[in-house]
Amino acid sequence: MIKVAVLGATGYAGIEIVRILSAHPEVKLEVLGSHSFDGQDISEVYGNFAHVLDMTCEELDLDRVAECDVAFTALPHGASKDVIPSLIEKGLKVIDMSGDFRYDDIKVYEKWYGQEHSSPELLEESVYGLCELYRDKVKSARLVGNPGCYTSCSILGAYPILKSGLGNSKNIIVDAKSGVTGAGRGLGLGTHFCECTENSKAYKVATHRHTSEIEQELSKAAGEEVMISFTPHLIPQKRGILSTIYVNLNKPCTTEEVIEIYKEFYKDEYFIRVKDAGKLPETKHVAGSNFVDIGIVVDERLNRAVIVSAIDNLGKGAASQAIQNMNIMFGLDEKTGIERAGFYL
Amino acid sequence: MIKVAVLGATGYAGIEIVRILSAHPEVKLEVLGSHSFDGQDISEVYGNFAHVLDMTCEELDLDRVAECDVAFTALPHGASKDVIPSLIEKGLKVIDMSGDFRYDDIKVYEKWYGQEHSSPELLEESVYGLCELYRDKVKSARLVGNPGCYTSCSILGAYPILKSGLGNSKNIIVDAKSGVTGAGRGLGLGTHFCECTENSKAYKVATHRHTSEIEQELSKAAGEEVMISFTPHLIPQKRGILSTIYVNLNKPCTTEEVIEIYKEFYKDEYFIRVKDAGKLPETKHVAGSNFVDIGIVVDERLNRAVIVSAIDNLGKGAASQAIQNMNIMFGLDEKTGIERAGFYL
Amino acid sequence: MIKVAVLGATGYAGIEIVRILSAHPEVKLEVLGSHSFDGQDISEVYGNFAHVLDMTCEELDLDRVAECDVAFTALPHGASKDVIPSLIEKGLKVIDMSGDFRYDDIKVYEKWYGQEHSSPELLEESVYGLCELYRDKVKSARLVGNPGCYTSCSILGAYPILKSGLGNSKNIIVDAKSGVTGAGRGLGLGTHFCECTENSKAYKVATHRHTSEIEQELSKAAGEEVMISFTPHLIPQKRGILSTIYVNLNKPCTTEEVIEIYKEFYKDEYFIRVKDAGKLPETKHVAGSNFVDIGIVVDERLNRAVIVSAIDNLGKGAASQAIQNMNIMFGLDEKTGIERAGFYL
Amino acid sequence: MIKVAVLGATGYAGIEIVRILSAHPEVKLEVLGSHSFDGQDISEVYGNFAHVLDMTCEELDLDRVAECDVAFTALPHGASKDVIPSLIEKGLKVIDMSGDFRYDDIKVYEKWYGQEHSSPELLEESVYGLCELYRDKVKSARLVGNPGCYTSCSILGAYPILKSGLGNSKNIIVDAKSGVTGAGRGLGLGTHFCECTENSKAYKVATHRHTSEIEQELSKAAGEEVMISFTPHLIPQKRGILSTIYVNLNKPCTTEEVIEIYKEFYKDEYFIRVKDAGKLPETKHVAGSNFVDIGIVVDERLNRAVIVSAIDNLGKGAASQAIQNMNIMFGLDEKTGIERAGFYL
Repeated sequence: MIKVAVLGATGYAGIEIVRILSAHPEVKLEVLGSHSFDGQDISEVYGNFAHVLDMTCEELDLDRVAECDVAFTALPHGASKDVIPSLIEKGLKVIDMSGDFRYDDIKVYEKWYGQEHSSPELLEESVYGLCELYRDKVKSARLVGNPGCYTSCSILGAYPILKSGLGNSKNIIVDAKSGVTGAGRGLGLGTHFCECTENSKAYKVATHRHTSEIEQELSKAAGEEVMISFTPHLIPQKRGILSTIYVNLNKPCTTEEVIEIYKEFYKDEYFIRVKDAGKLPETKHVAGSNFVDIGIVVDERLNRAVIVSAIDNLGKGAASQAIQNMNIMFGLDEKTGIERAGFYL
Repeated sequence: MIKVAVLGATGYAGIEIVRILSAHPEVKLEVLGSHSFDGQDISEVYGNFAHVLDMTCEELDLDRVAECDVAFTALPHGASKDVIPSLIEKGLKVIDMSGDFRYDDIKVYEKWYGQEHSSPELLEESVYGLCELYRDKVKSARLVGNPGCYTSCSILGAYPILKSGLGNSKNIIVDAKSGVTGAGRGLGLGTHFCECTENSKAYKVATHRHTSEIEQELSKAAGEEVMISFTPHLIPQKRGILSTIYVNLNKPCTTEEVIEIYKEFYKDEYFIRVKDAGKLPETKHVAGSNFVDIGIVVDERLNRAVIVSAIDNLGKGAASQAIQNMNIMFGLDEKTGIERAGFYL
Repeated sequence: MIKVAVLGATGYAGIEIVRILSAHPEVKLEVLGSHSFDGQDISEVYGNFAHVLDMTCEELDLDRVAECDVAFTALPHGASKDVIPSLIEKGLKVIDMSGDFRYDDIKVYEKWYGQEHSSPELLEESVYGLCELYRDKVKSARLVGNPGCYTSCSILGAYPILKSGLGNSKNIIVDAKSGVTGAGRGLGLGTHFCECTENSKAYKVATHRHTSEIEQELSKAAGEEVMISFTPHLIPQKRGILSTIYVNLNKPCTTEEVIEIYKEFYKDEYFIRVKDAGKLPETKHVAGSNFVDIGIVVDERLNRAVIVSAIDNLGKGAASQAIQNMNIMFGLDEKTGIERAGFYL
Repeated sequence: MIKVAVLGATGYAGIEIVRILSAHPEVKLEVLGSHSFDGQDISEVYGNFAHVLDMTCEELDLDRVAECDVAFTALPHGASKDVIPSLIEKGLKVIDMSGDFRYDDIKVYEKWYGQEHSSPELLEESVYGLCELYRDKVKSARLVGNPGCYTSCSILGAYPILKSGLGNSKNIIVDAKSGVTGAGRGLGLGTHFCECTENSKAYKVATHRHTSEIEQELSKAAGEEVMISFTPHLIPQKRGILSTIYVNLNKPCTTEEVIEIYKEFYKDEYFIRVKDAGKLPETKHVAGSNFVDIGIVVDERLNRAVIVSAIDNLGKGAASQAIQNMNIMFGLDEKTGIERAGFYL
């Protein structure tokens, strides 16, 4: 059994990791780290765990964590600064949910995060945990930077068309809509029920950090620098991200031809479901799962592809992708514990 | 492996059975019966199943079903009239989701359902599938009448206090609130999003059929005829039933004392979680699970207990309880496939 | 024009008062008091007011307020302690949204609020602002204690049957469901979108302060002391309260007979809509309005009436009732500014 | 008083017209046409109107309608084919909610609607009722084609930047999100509560009819043919459209400069609220109102403007804009009856 610590276990990403791991056949949860709920049973903090998981939240204790094989770190930016190097040093594998270990180029990180990086060497070593693209590197990684929620959805949606050379690298627009769990469990007027329900809005237009993460990967796909418009929106649902991606085509083609490119590109990927022509993703199809659904329409009038991709922001956008990474890192079937259909209802 | 047919697989109760069974380690789904979607892949009807379950919906064919070990019948009232006797005759075990096999007394059924019963002998033989109360009978049953959603929640909430003799059998009120999946997938103005969201209402006041089912069981608990006010309400959420139950006490006692009675009564029950004093159930704690959460407050001013019980109407109120029954009928650990924590988010 | 100050203008009750008054033909808004948003334009705090209401929030300044004819005080408990006597002294009429001036008996207040009352003389003088019952007293009042949201809904729902002598004063149950605006704009985990949506729960069972307010009025209706079970529930919608009220009958009667009693009792009341037999209230019918909808079913099996009443907790449960009181106090047609149909959508 | 008929009064657009007109000081509602609810009181169909509007729905009777001054036609496509010419002939002014009278070029209509136009002469005469752009023509119109919901939001959002010459007419993307009332009251699985809530999706990608309407107007703004990507999305709320519009800039400029262009362009428009830099629209700010909120961010990295516009699809996107048109046609202050702040809550 793989011994696991979840640090920051009581945030939304953390608790979704816990929920999935509590039923993972190869895992033993050892440590639930939570500063805010230190000493409380997890079933007091999240009532759904009563009778299922009998564990107590605890303040971070590196020696306790050191007994584990792997740590998921879902800590506030900065809080993980000292923690992760210590864990690596103690021989743990680490899957980090923050933005700190997702970048190839430290300058990009420092520009978009507005701060110096605290562990340049570890950044150098870390692997970007978008499993479908970096599976081989993840296998032997000690430290994985788990991708952002918007980015997983958007990169996987746009990658094949750029990689194939069919998509033009200019004028790419990613218009993304996220459920409210993406904003986390912290309190703020913006996540008050009465302010959120029956409401939609764009936010951080042209400035959201995930822009840089998407650009990094799409540039690699295109083989040249890609800069995109990325606009995140908050919509009144808990789970789900829908990315609508606009890519001009380098030559005329049909919807079916682009779909074929995607089906070929993802032909071995269990978690990626490319829709047939005429079908489009809906977030309820992926909620509660690790799946990525992708639908494509070519607007022949405009010689432009409209690609719609959907994930569960807590699933493929956070927790279940982290577990997919763990499965890969420990040589398990990568579907273990996360192969199920989503909730739909 | 137990070979399973789900008849009426594309309604909400049916598809939740399918969703759970698609990950049940001892089950092989053989037949998905659906009149409306005959010939369509289940993943076209419910997109969450793509890559997970590769099956096609089919029109009812008794010979096909006869190859199975057990059938879940989630058919419209009446549609199952001829089907169930045939299946029993062919040697299948049947777990029926309708109200047809839940009654001890055929007259009660005929009064509340306003029609003659088509299979009095099978009704006689059938077992009421409220597992926590009738586990032993379920073990050897050929035909289980799976309880209604409101009834599972309400009976389990009120049973111990009446059984103990502490609760008075007069003036019992069950005020229940249900999510909209309880109304099924059929179309009607009452389930239109714009008519449902931001809206609550009572319906079928004093006439809902589940009244009779609750009364049947509470009468057995009390050892005398119990008649209750049962008021169902529709509230704007998908999953969840919350029953608020008012029972006068035969003698003064404290909240803690009543909780103790409940904890003792349910001490061996994994799926029933009696809350400590000061804690109350919330539907998000049980959504997506087979759990029943029960909280109790004694109003000493009034010498009355207020008992709040919560279930997922699609879970313990329908699909997962049906699977719990199946597990019992086939000698499996009754938690198999349904032991997980609910979604919470 | 009546010059109005709204103190605590940026809470949910306060802003609903402002919204209605901004279109009231006989009112001039003079002061929007807000400690938290002092110096900010109201349209920055609530974007719906841009181009409609050009006013700035201001810290409480009694001299400024003194220029008004009437003040609505929607201040935190305690904050209004010194304010209200000063305003009265300066000759303003005051409509207070807190619980401080709703009681006949100071002892009841002090028991349920757990504190000494700071202005016993004003409590003595104040009028309980449930317009349909106390219209005559409101006319000449200097200080009105505007009723609570649950209480308006519940008292108006139960009053006629008790007043008529048909309803028995024992075993009355009020099971009430409220939208989340009732919890106010303050931040807390309980009002986080992801914790609220798709969730229902009971809270403050047997201890909610509104119990005492309902009992006070129903005791007057019954002509004897009435004690009730009152259970508030939080349901995932913004606006609306639905109270389901159970009252045993002193003699057998029909649904139609009870409805007739209600229609007669409320025959001159514009804002109270008693439903015909077979019809029941829904919160969407009253959302955004000052209406109270009441539906009745007699359960002849049990000789018990089930009365369902619905209001908008921000409307008749707070803001529009406060304005109805203002209209009465200033000799206007009481419907002025609040006569419109609710939103429905 | 203007005598008004609303034909198709019980659909969502129709009933919102009725709701607003029931409080319009210059209007007398004379006829509520409804095929489905012929003979029923409007308060039976929409319970919010009880005590407010005492009218009965009636089957279409041209002689009855002929007594009115103006008719709002919210009839199914085709149903209005014969009706509108008759009404015009009888001397009524007509405001049509369908797509039939919104086009300059009959060929565009016939291409996008896939049918011959039944009244080419009336189309020729009709005025496109986007008040802020065509106020002068509306004044003297007999027949107004009220704009579509998506189109009002999108055209008003993009018009100034194209008109100014700053926006490039190529590569314009309009990514729009709509609440579910936009889908109407008709029944379908897509509007079932359990299928809609907690779900988002794109639909009719590259084929939605509103594309042609937006292109018609933006082409006039740009002075050359504009072709756009328009992607509608369904999001889980009742009211509200949010359009996120991407326009490349012909020369570098700042957010503030573009905002200034918008503020100047709309400086006399009460119903258009251009946000200051750093502020963005939210649908709750416009829900229940006739306002259009517009926010702008220039992404200087990409030399592209991102414009976010928000309306209530039932308000400025349908009913209140229709009433704004009526006000203009009858020489009233165009704000009459629709000047209020939206609900927010």
